Amino acid sequence: MYLKDKHMNLKEIKKEVYEANLELVKRGLVLYTWGNVSVIDRENQLVIIKPRGIKYEDLEPEDMSVTDMDGNIVDGKLLPSVDLDIHLALYKQFEDIGAIAHTHSTYATAWAQARCDIPAFGTTHGDHFYGDIPCTRQMTIEETENDYEKHTGEVIVETFLERKIDPMQMCAVLTAGHGPFTWGKDAKSAVEHSVILEELARMAMLTLDINPNAPKLEKHILDKHYLRKYGKNAYFYQEKK
Amino acid sequence: MYLKDKHMNLKEIKKEVYEANLELVKRGLVLYTWGNVSVIDRENQLVIIKPRGIKYEDLEPEDMSVTDMDGNIVDGKLLPSVDLDIHLALYKQFEDIGAIAHTHSTYATAWAQARCDIPAFGTTHGDHFYGDIPCTRQMTIEETENDYEKHTGEVIVETFLERKIDPMQMCAVLTAGHGPFTWGKDAKSAVEHSVILEELARMAMLTLDINPNAPKLEKHILDKHYLRKYGKNAYFYQEKK
Amino acid sequence: MYLKDKHMNLKEIKKEVYEANLELVKRGLVLYTWGNVSVIDRENQLVIIKPRGIKYEDLEPEDMSVTDMDGNIVDGKLLPSVDLDIHLALYKQFEDIGAIAHTHSTYATAWAQARCDIPAFGTTHGDHFYGDIPCTRQMTIEETENDYEKHTGEVIVETFLERKIDPMQMCAVLTAGHGPFTWGKDAKSAVEHSVILEELARMAMLTLDINPNAPKLEKHILDKHYLRKYGKNAYFYQEKK
Amino acid sequence: MYLKDKHMNLKEIKKEVYEANLELVKRGLVLYTWGNVSVIDRENQLVIIKPRGIKYEDLEPEDMSVTDMDGNIVDGKLLPSVDLDIHLALYKQFEDIGAIAHTHSTYATAWAQARCDIPAFGTTHGDHFYGDIPCTRQMTIEETENDYEKHTGEVIVETFLERKIDPMQMCAVLTAGHGPFTWGKDAKSAVEHSVILEELARMAMLTLDINPNAPKLEKHILDKHYLRKYGKNAYFYQEKK
Repeated sequence: MYLKDKHMNLKEIKKEVYEANLELVKRGLVLYTWGNVSVIDRENQLVIIKPRGIKYEDLEPEDMSVTDMDGNIVDGKLLPSVDLDIHLALYKQFEDIGAIAHTHSTYATAWAQARCDIPAFGTTHGDHFYGDIPCTRQMTIEETENDYEKHTGEVIVETFLERKIDPMQMCAVLTAGHGPFTWGKDAKSAVEHSVILEELARMAMLTLDINPNAPKLEKHILDKHYLRKYGKNAYFYQEKK
Repeated sequence: MYLKDKHMNLKEIKKEVYEANLELVKRGLVLYTWGNVSVIDRENQLVIIKPRGIKYEDLEPEDMSVTDMDGNIVDGKLLPSVDLDIHLALYKQFEDIGAIAHTHSTYATAWAQARCDIPAFGTTHGDHFYGDIPCTRQMTIEETENDYEKHTGEVIVETFLERKIDPMQMCAVLTAGHGPFTWGKDAKSAVEHSVILEELARMAMLTLDINPNAPKLEKHILDKHYLRKYGKNAYFYQEKK
Repeated sequence: MYLKDKHMNLKEIKKEVYEANLELVKRGLVLYTWGNVSVIDRENQLVIIKPRGIKYEDLEPEDMSVTDMDGNIVDGKLLPSVDLDIHLALYKQFEDIGAIAHTHSTYATAWAQARCDIPAFGTTHGDHFYGDIPCTRQMTIEETENDYEKHTGEVIVETFLERKIDPMQMCAVLTAGHGPFTWGKDAKSAVEHSVILEELARMAMLTLDINPNAPKLEKHILDKHYLRKYGKNAYFYQEKK
Repeated sequence: MYLKDKHMNLKEIKKEVYEANLELVKRGLVLYTWGNVSVIDRENQLVIIKPRGIKYEDLEPEDMSVTDMDGNIVDGKLLPSVDLDIHLALYKQFEDIGAIAHTHSTYATAWAQARCDIPAFGTTHGDHFYGDIPCTRQMTIEETENDYEKHTGEVIVETFLERKIDPMQMCAVLTAGHGPFTWGKDAKSAVEHSVILEELARMAMLTLDINPNAPKLEKHILDKHYLRKYGKNAYFYQEKK
């Protein structure tokens, strides 16, 4: 419930969304209009998202699109990202997340196109994501022809439910043949997960290049690294988070 | 017929061509004198193109070379790019295109050297190119010894005709053992297609590196992504294009 | 005994550690809070290290954490890097080293994840590291559950003792499934070894990509290159080092 | 005999050598002290070269080392690059070259470590180098123990003589297990060949990655591209070179 706590107003949230979108560009994760970031204001049940089909250099904070949970525009004139319905599906199901980022970053997209989970090969991975990063199944013809974006979101949710993955311990997914979505408590954290996912995707590919039989990180090491940062007795940061 | 509509004069077009050529450098797609961009003024049947063998840092807008449709210089003193005849062949056959870009960008050139089409593995690809990006056959000895550049253009055209590819849905080609050509309604769009082609070429190689049996994007997803941007009922942009 | 010779005071050492940590960012070897550099003041038996879980852009020289050889904080308020115990174990065993750097740089980490030594394929390697760069064994469950970081350091030491590697001729190691540690006479040298290791890791992967049967560098060439820089009759530098 | 024609004095040549060395850094071809560029003043039988073991950021034009054709220092106080004897051997045998550049650039070095010629896969290659870029044999123990650098130069010369390669049509070589040397009429051209070699080395590796059976560029296309730039009837540049 982080926005409630922070009592941010809509103008501040728009700025946060705007800056997070630009951060995707600075980090080299998007080209042209590719990618988008949204934030949810859970108190007021509003989603603030990048408008569709506009290049980053032409964006201003006030251009961010604001919709209700059904995707109706409630502020501003610009249409929201075409991926809005994916964001909405995730916000509805994953109740603790505050923001979502979507990119077509090179290596993460290559794994999505390869239709493979990204194996947890090392502690760099375990420091941020608790296990293999899942790749969804491909969408059916029916799911594609109508409400394609909404169904994309639902297939992500299905992946997490069926494989019993906790979205707060795995803030990333690959949609098959498409690309990555990441999330977090706020826009900054969602973008950071996109940056880190891209680096992990690259490292994992290189690992298999060097040794096609590279073992996954042992469970006890994965636990150690993930839990020293996010577990009950975490000691990775100056203060307990 | 975009130049007619915009009523640009020759000076403005030269500036457009000049800036598009520099954009190739900024985007990291060319080294030294490699690459070139041209624009066609269909109303006046003129082609404006980078002069040959001159480095980008030494170019000025007024240096752009202007020729008629037979390649005769009609303005300025500098000889046009040696690739002029390739551009002319494409302009003559592909009547709706307004500009052409040619680079030796790393990954697209590697695919051309590998003599392989770039498979449409993902939605990033489908968002811009409708199907696999074709690689031409290699030129014969006869085609090479005389009018090499003109024949290069003709082999591109042959590839599109024989494989029944619509050049407005596939604004890119790889010439075997050589490199990519892309086009669009204007110079900016032609260069954008070069940038995107390079990224797709890189992603496709990585996809096969991760999974040599990666499937191509399903037809229904390819259609969805291409058509939501460019189809009759497109909804990807703020306005219908 | 380099710090003693230089008579640096604690403030100067903190600045040295701070700048070395920032150099990791400039060189593209770390993201966010990843990585850390420490320096040992052997005269006063103090270790100066980056504080844990703080981003590089938020660091100031005075934030560096100072501990004794048992890891007790003796200056400042910030907790030292969680990797402190790894650094301490190395300083205790490798008596001639003055500084340690740790990164998750892409290619070196991929080799660590692949659980492979980096073979000495060329003179670039031999110019800096005398032989293959060793990868440790993975830690046991017992070593992981208690004093994980201290045991990590001990497994590095074990690797050097068992394989009879001289840590002054091999200023780098890969910890299995984790990433690289490098060291040197001072912080600058430790960081340089991280930069060079990353480049060697990249070259080695590419070498195998081109020729899976690439031979290691012949012993006589390795000797020549390493010894013309660091041997008794070295002639690589302007002055004898 | 280009220096004679230009009537450059020693100060001007030192500046040329200095700037060419810095260009290697700007182009990302060297780290730290790696690499070096020299120029020969054929009229006065002097070689001007980067001094050994000094970082690029510490160099000034007047630091360049000047030697006679036997390697004796005739101007300045700094010792010449340890690779001087390689340069001298090439200048003695290849009488038309005016400058030499040596780097450890990533992809070219990987090919040298793989002990493979770089195949001429495309027209980008044929635009600059007339055929496969040769990799030398490895040096024997005897050649290594005494006068290692001089023998390195002689092995390069041997490679060109035995394989009947014209050094003016192939301004590059890979020394086995070591790295690339390139040359040209002046320092700028020698460095350009290093930049282009690195890009070709990268493209060639990617080509094989995509298609392990990729064919080499057909002889008639290689001839066309090389000769339209450098042949008797060249038409690639504004003026005949």
